Amino acid sequence: MRLRLDLGYDGTDFAGWAAQPVLRTVEGVLSEALTTVLRATEPVRLTVAGRTDAGVHARGQVVHADVDEDAFARLPGRSDRPPEVAAVARLAGVLPADVVVRRVAVAPDGFDARFSALRRRYLYRVCDDSAAVDPLRRRDTVVVRDHLDVAAMDEAAGRLVGLRDFAAFCKRREGATTVRTLLEYSWRRGGGGVLEGTVVADAFCHSMVRALVGAVVPVGEGREASGWPEEVLRAGARDPRVKVMPAHGLSLEEVVYPGDEALAARAEEARATRTLPG
Amino acid sequence: MRLRLDLGYDGTDFAGWAAQPVLRTVEGVLSEALTTVLRATEPVRLTVAGRTDAGVHARGQVVHADVDEDAFARLPGRSDRPPEVAAVARLAGVLPADVVVRRVAVAPDGFDARFSALRRRYLYRVCDDSAAVDPLRRRDTVVVRDHLDVAAMDEAAGRLVGLRDFAAFCKRREGATTVRTLLEYSWRRGGGGVLEGTVVADAFCHSMVRALVGAVVPVGEGREASGWPEEVLRAGARDPRVKVMPAHGLSLEEVVYPGDEALAARAEEARATRTLPG
Repeated sequence: MRLRLDLGYDGTDFAGWAAQPVLRTVEGVLSEALTTVLRATEPVRLTVAGRTDAGVHARGQVVHADVDEDAFARLPGRSDRPPEVAAVARLAGVLPADVVVRRVAVAPDGFDARFSALRRRYLYRVCDDSAAVDPLRRRDTVVVRDHLDVAAMDEAAGRLVGLRDFAAFCKRREGATTVRTLLEYSWRRGGGGVLEGTVVADAFCHSMVRALVGAVVPVGEGREASGWPEEVLRAGARDPRVKVMPAHGLSLEEVVYPGDEALAARAEEARATRTLPG
Repeated sequence: MRLRLDLGYDGTDFAGWAAQPVLRTVEGVLSEALTTVLRATEPVRLTVAGRTDAGVHARGQVVHADVDEDAFARLPGRSDRPPEVAAVARLAGVLPADVVVRRVAVAPDGFDARFSALRRRYLYRVCDDSAAVDPLRRRDTVVVRDHLDVAAMDEAAGRLVGLRDFAAFCKRREGATTVRTLLEYSWRRGGGGVLEGTVVADAFCHSMVRALVGAVVPVGEGREASGWPEEVLRAGARDPRVKVMPAHGLSLEEVVYPGDEALAARAEEARATRTLPG
């Protein structure tokens, strides 16, 4: 039986999502909690929608886990709560304060947290006004010295949208494609001196969002023209002028899936290597 | 020479504002930082607009400090920055990450951070939707189990506004009045399952805001009628059904002062003991 879990975490004190020996990771902590709650004899294995790096946060992460049906049904104990509700309460009892499982549901047929996803939405927070810095948001906000021109950043970002080869913004990995569909990339001013960057794509390669942010910050600072990030994209090679921005400004906000009837087909499509048309 | 400092802090790891031996307090940390950057021989003394309790945060705290004029003038060193700007940068260099001094200014004549203030605005954050909890806001948001009726809370809160004796919501202190003018008390829903309570008064007595919140939460839960908090107020004695809510949901957001010409008169007025008319 496959479960879907929706969760959020403060990535500050985690060495990223993926389980590692010794280091504290979100996958490690969540797998241990699920294993405890379900009294499983083997560690419960998780498949995640977005593998976040060390220090990156999530408000809308999704995972799936294949678990024993009887163990799940036993979760309510003597209470008359449904097992889904009991699971959320039991997990809250064993998880640390920096991980919150918001919802547990029996996954529909064909659901795969990673491959069924249509798109992922990330948020990046930068504050450029030292007189407005909120110390309560220092864990998910990067502070920069210079004033940023948000309109120029937004224009530069919009030029990167589309089905493109993002090799210039990805860590190269042997045999993996760097072709992705960037569905939205925009910048706007929120309150308190904070600029919010929204990045939506079908999928991301490693460090891609933080490099996309690093490509437009020099535009905001007035050091590069608004066409520069697109030139870097076209050149197709990593440019040392593009800095990978700090992890703690980044949060995975949402993972979007198709309707139940399309889950399996979407997973099959996503598993096929992405290639540029033509 | 008197300086005005505007600051914010994450109260989580502080034993409140007021300096205490051994314990880590905001006053202690800030006084030490100012003493260091001004190379003062005596610890710089601070007067604060709102003495926050242990765990309470601030985004709009104001303090004043009387400092040596020459030491202040020397702050820029060889740079051509004004001393006000140099002071902010120097303080940022010595303060821990959970305290941010946003602005330093030479105070106008008659300014007193505490007694010149016309009013203080506090914000209280409660989340009543466990499926929407944001682990990145756990330091300044209190999570409750039951759904809260925000309209009923807002109505109950509005009935408390006015020049009243708030003895029912204050810790009694020998010889101190509990008469205050509550200028605004309202509740609204923000995003992410969070209810935001705004409380504005000329001044507050100890634990008053957290008791005012504790008075309307039972109304939101449907356990008390919306007229109940006002009945408690009129009874004039602490009621065990009113819980003082946890500190970490509370933040001092703003302190408002009159125009420069009225600062001294306002301070004189505020120093006089507040009494009910008639």
